[in-house]
Amino acid sequence: MTPALTDPAALAEKLIACPSVTPATGAVFDCLEAMLRPLGFTVERFVDGDEAEGGPVENLLALRRSGDGPHFAFAGHLDVVPPGEGWTSDAFLPERRGELLYGRGAVDMKGAIAAFVAAVARTPDAGGTISLLITGDEEGDAVHGTRALMRHMAARAVVPELCLVGEPTSVQRLGDTIKIGRRGSVNMWITVPGVQGHVAYPHLADNPIPRLIRVLSAIEAIELDGGTDWFQPSNIEITDLHVGNPATNVIPARAAARLSIRFNDLHRGEALVSRIAALVEAEGGTLQAKISGEAFLTPPGALSTLVSDAITAETGLVPELSTSGGTSDARFLSALCPVVEFGLLNATMHKLDEAVALPDLEGLTRIYMRVLAAALSPAAAG
Amino acid sequence: MTPALTDPAALAEKLIACPSVTPATGAVFDCLEAMLRPLGFTVERFVDGDEAEGGPVENLLALRRSGDGPHFAFAGHLDVVPPGEGWTSDAFLPERRGELLYGRGAVDMKGAIAAFVAAVARTPDAGGTISLLITGDEEGDAVHGTRALMRHMAARAVVPELCLVGEPTSVQRLGDTIKIGRRGSVNMWITVPGVQGHVAYPHLADNPIPRLIRVLSAIEAIELDGGTDWFQPSNIEITDLHVGNPATNVIPARAAARLSIRFNDLHRGEALVSRIAALVEAEGGTLQAKISGEAFLTPPGALSTLVSDAITAETGLVPELSTSGGTSDARFLSALCPVVEFGLLNATMHKLDEAVALPDLEGLTRIYMRVLAAALSPAAAG
Repeated sequence: MTPALTDPAALAEKLIACPSVTPATGAVFDCLEAMLRPLGFTVERFVDGDEAEGGPVENLLALRRSGDGPHFAFAGHLDVVPPGEGWTSDAFLPERRGELLYGRGAVDMKGAIAAFVAAVARTPDAGGTISLLITGDEEGDAVHGTRALMRHMAARAVVPELCLVGEPTSVQRLGDTIKIGRRGSVNMWITVPGVQGHVAYPHLADNPIPRLIRVLSAIEAIELDGGTDWFQPSNIEITDLHVGNPATNVIPARAAARLSIRFNDLHRGEALVSRIAALVEAEGGTLQAKISGEAFLTPPGALSTLVSDAITAETGLVPELSTSGGTSDARFLSALCPVVEFGLLNATMHKLDEAVALPDLEGLTRIYMRVLAAALSPAAAG
Repeated sequence: MTPALTDPAALAEKLIACPSVTPATGAVFDCLEAMLRPLGFTVERFVDGDEAEGGPVENLLALRRSGDGPHFAFAGHLDVVPPGEGWTSDAFLPERRGELLYGRGAVDMKGAIAAFVAAVARTPDAGGTISLLITGDEEGDAVHGTRALMRHMAARAVVPELCLVGEPTSVQRLGDTIKIGRRGSVNMWITVPGVQGHVAYPHLADNPIPRLIRVLSAIEAIELDGGTDWFQPSNIEITDLHVGNPATNVIPARAAARLSIRFNDLHRGEALVSRIAALVEAEGGTLQAKISGEAFLTPPGALSTLVSDAITAETGLVPELSTSGGTSDARFLSALCPVVEFGLLNATMHKLDEAVALPDLEGLTRIYMRVLAAALSPAAAG
């Protein structure tokens, strides 16, 4: 075995050194493929959304089959958010300072992909199937990424039995948090039309603002739920109001607002859209909506216990099973099999001077080794 | 008497030919002064607001005293709103086409000033005092116009007993409407601060929008009054909403709204500001307000009867005594003496191709002659 393939820090440095702001294609995938082939993986790569807004996006499916044992999938993304300005060192020139390795993607999530490669490199082949489901479009619209990869897998009849997404879920210490679900997310745009006029002659106009306020008051009065065993209560936030009327003596012709709803698995996006649309239409308004993702939950069970036990064995911590935070590609993958998310500390993700602690990279590699060992034992198959 | 001074159309043409977009100074005042001096008026002119925003503004006080009879004042403005683009003929080159005289200010209100000059020119001097209170800042902020003129009059102990403002009050036919009052007007700007954050973590943020909506709902629930014998109900319009948050996943740091209240003489601007401010402050917001003018009413009485009778004698119409519409300088002058407003048709005021019907100019001149005759008889003094 090439020594470098067992060293997650060296692997992470190589991945970080390939700039890959969303949507990602090319060199960073070449780099990962070069790590996987010596480990016995077959690697399939394809580009989706060539002509589309937000494209082109590269995706990679790596498979290593060995007998009829269970199929464990590791999912992640090689794209990163833009570095922004003000880094201490170049965001795409990985740099170690003390115990920290700096670079865009260090924790979200090139570091986790490096840890996974190193974990495989250190694990004797004991049967079963290992796959990597890697996309270049997780931080963007996620239209041509994991969903395209899943269509590719369906066409090839590749179906994992367990899946771990390497998102940075740890909060204070490596291993303190696993995500077993995520809330769904939907944004809505409300427009209420009116008839413009002069404030001195309101009977000749139709002010849309009072009707918008009635809509928003009704929305504010909604209590979607009180939370579940595994989810906090669903939440509606009004995030913008817009009229754009510069004239103090003019009644405007339209008024608009925008909502963001984060909802748990008691709701479906379409039902929420219908419910809000009814309130909007009652006041003569119109609604547009974009469902970013449905809620998903992998109820605590074999997979979460397996990952939790690996964490406890390595760190002594008993991780919290969380469903908080934003969306991730796990919302798509949950259609295939039980999915949990576990990875590095998320404190610096998306920030300037994103960095991973080198001991955490090693610790994550060891945890992933334990996960692999347990998942590939015949008893673990879902 | 110069024949031209008895011809309101010729006088109106001369005034229109002097461009005088707000704030007005100079030539248009020279032109009016040249009309008034041959009629025996002393003319005092001064400029106010030289260094100020919205300045400089010219004002003119013309007085013709003859014995100890009553003092009747005619008030008006020589400034006009900008012509805008798209006139059939040049807005500042008066042009007669058929029965109509076109030009910016034809009805608002150089035509009325011309009619007043012609009325005086046709009226034998039978004692009493006639004054013209003419400003160059009625269409603008009105800060350096009529209020400055009133300070000037106070310093000179000039106090009229009756005042007619020549604003274009007629709606369908010359003489159908006199204004005996105007509503007051106040604009308010509401700002509600919050704490910015991510929609996925609302407990770490403080969304100002729900609080703004509560404020606006409370404002919408206010019924200021049911109207009076002479005024329609006071009215609140919310005219703008603004957050300016482009990010769908961000809870904004502030939310703002703007109101316009038109109120009758049951209210004072400051009291309305205090009432709204209490609602805003209860939700942690702040309020800024600008009172454009208080409501005023000259209750139906000697002056309105005098003007109404003059109209009926000339036209056969019994004018409606109205308090509708926007503000005018009558709101200031009402502090001096009873004030009514009466003038030409307002259909084309502030519009492209503003025009006055030549028979209306003659009719208005004749009505003003009747008003002068009645007002200057000793019995008419307030």
